[in-house]
Amino acid sequence: MKIDGTPYRSIWVDETDRWSVRIIDQTKLPWAVDLVRLTTLDEMAHAIRAMLVRGAPLIGASAAYGVALAMRVDGSDAALSQALDVLAATRPTAINLLWALKRMGSCLAKLKPEMREAAAYEEAAKICDEDVAVNAAIGRNGLALIEEKAKAKKRVNILTHCNAGWIATVDWGTALAPIYMAHDAGIDVHVWVEETRPRNQGASLTAWELGKHGVNHTVIADNAGGHFMQHGEVDLVIVGTDRVTRQGDVCNKIGTYLKALSAQDNNVPFWVALPSSTIDWTIRDGLADIPIEERATTEVTTMTGRAMDGSIATVRIVPTSSPAANPAFDVTPARLVTGLITERGLCDATEPTLTELFSDLA
Amino acid sequence: MKIDGTPYRSIWVDETDRWSVRIIDQTKLPWAVDLVRLTTLDEMAHAIRAMLVRGAPLIGASAAYGVALAMRVDGSDAALSQALDVLAATRPTAINLLWALKRMGSCLAKLKPEMREAAAYEEAAKICDEDVAVNAAIGRNGLALIEEKAKAKKRVNILTHCNAGWIATVDWGTALAPIYMAHDAGIDVHVWVEETRPRNQGASLTAWELGKHGVNHTVIADNAGGHFMQHGEVDLVIVGTDRVTRQGDVCNKIGTYLKALSAQDNNVPFWVALPSSTIDWTIRDGLADIPIEERATTEVTTMTGRAMDGSIATVRIVPTSSPAANPAFDVTPARLVTGLITERGLCDATEPTLTELFSDLA
Repeated sequence: MKIDGTPYRSIWVDETDRWSVRIIDQTKLPWAVDLVRLTTLDEMAHAIRAMLVRGAPLIGASAAYGVALAMRVDGSDAALSQALDVLAATRPTAINLLWALKRMGSCLAKLKPEMREAAAYEEAAKICDEDVAVNAAIGRNGLALIEEKAKAKKRVNILTHCNAGWIATVDWGTALAPIYMAHDAGIDVHVWVEETRPRNQGASLTAWELGKHGVNHTVIADNAGGHFMQHGEVDLVIVGTDRVTRQGDVCNKIGTYLKALSAQDNNVPFWVALPSSTIDWTIRDGLADIPIEERATTEVTTMTGRAMDGSIATVRIVPTSSPAANPAFDVTPARLVTGLITERGLCDATEPTLTELFSDLA
Repeated sequence: MKIDGTPYRSIWVDETDRWSVRIIDQTKLPWAVDLVRLTTLDEMAHAIRAMLVRGAPLIGASAAYGVALAMRVDGSDAALSQALDVLAATRPTAINLLWALKRMGSCLAKLKPEMREAAAYEEAAKICDEDVAVNAAIGRNGLALIEEKAKAKKRVNILTHCNAGWIATVDWGTALAPIYMAHDAGIDVHVWVEETRPRNQGASLTAWELGKHGVNHTVIADNAGGHFMQHGEVDLVIVGTDRVTRQGDVCNKIGTYLKALSAQDNNVPFWVALPSSTIDWTIRDGLADIPIEERATTEVTTMTGRAMDGSIATVRIVPTSSPAANPAFDVTPARLVTGLITERGLCDATEPTLTELFSDLA
């Protein structure tokens, strides 16, 4: 999508510097747009580990380019094997990371060492293009929902939680893809951006990317989403997801469940946008079977932002002696989900419809 | 309640300094316990205006003592009238403020000027004692709910939102009164303290006062409350309220409605603690008839806390170009409220039961 009028992807090859990889350092957003140049495997491993890049699809694409950067120096079996190991250890719980590395490994292992550099860049580019195509399809499918709302009223108000935007993917995003498509099609769309405590991805990332692309939006406290639904100011909720079970339970950033409840209580459609790779066909009951990551309590007890003097500062907001807890995700039962927006189309959050639409995968 | 073992009220007369008024500067909590001495009308007016004292009952008590401080210098009609005017202008929307000033005015106006100083201190003390008695009654009535839960399991987990604690009143608090009583009675009570964005009264005030009294608690993001209910880790929700309608709709800090929804979805009892003075007998439909205060968006776009160097600092957490919205309260419909904890007893959130229990007021 665009940053101040210029189209970007979240990762790309710099052709003038044969061939480094460029990313946006997302740890510096929204306060600085730092287009970092990565030239080595170690630099890419650090970028993934330190979350300069984040978001499952983007992590996968970054890992793929990490392999390419390694092959640029040395196409040997030893170098390939080391690259795969180093990258796999950066964020071991990310499914897309391992998926991308497996794909790069099988593609390259069968080639002669001197062929691997070019093939690695080519395969990484394919992974990126496929991600963009999947997200664009999600965007087109979700656009239909927004167009339907736009028939009845001039402005369509959409609420989202966390960041499932273009910077979490290679381009378009998942939850935000339909919104960008609607905006680009001239629909008057306005987004309620929940700040998404404790990591504030809404306030710092979603607000930033919507603003830079020129999409109308308003940042609100997570507490306020229900109030706006009660007062008819939300036409549609669209969120992303980290994992969907085969019966349609949705695991997403902590707090999503509360918005699904208030959407149901106020007859607001609650949609979840996802690539089918997010569906975990091995489990049904999300509440029972999805382990919830407990993250550092400092995410709750502190807040980072820009101080008056322009520096980035962290302040503590909880008494030093008070303990905190920080479950990072919650599970929204399928009964609260109006439907899923996938690259193959819209679909009820039920096992029969999911297994029919994805009969080749389920 | 206690601060590190010593019992306090949130406002008291200093007998060694005949008679100044002492308060805890709540703008400095939780980072410093500054027991400010107020000796003049103007100092008290400033303390109310600048929110060194906050919480409806405490504001009323503070205003009463503001009149006493004025009478200490000059008991004339002119001085009394000026004191009432100055104090009424400090926070004009606070119902308790005007109620307390009216009561002080009628009590003093009929007395000779030289009698007014002593009478003012006496009446202010009565207002404080009455508040303490009402809150203690709320505490005793709510204690029964916790005792009931404690029969079935060792530890009782209670979730609360915002600050309805002793520092918002003269003592005990409303929502926290039953919790303090349970703790003092030796029940193993643990409180989930929601941080309560955007003003963070949970993280900064509720966590502080529970910690200082020795009550077990854990601070969580507002987003996490539903998750803990889904996993059986909340036995009871108790919140305060700013206004209850005659049919039992509850206006409270933004985000309360979301917790009422998740309490219902998980069969967790959702109780609201209040003095009957909080009931607005003139309205029924809270959603339609309670105007919701829109507060400064800087409360959403910034966060204040303690910086690494110990100073209190404010950081911006939303991109400069992103707008924000900040509704301060929401309305929880009576259908989601298990019951009300009042000074006269427990009561369903319905018009028939409310008007029966308070037949003299309704």
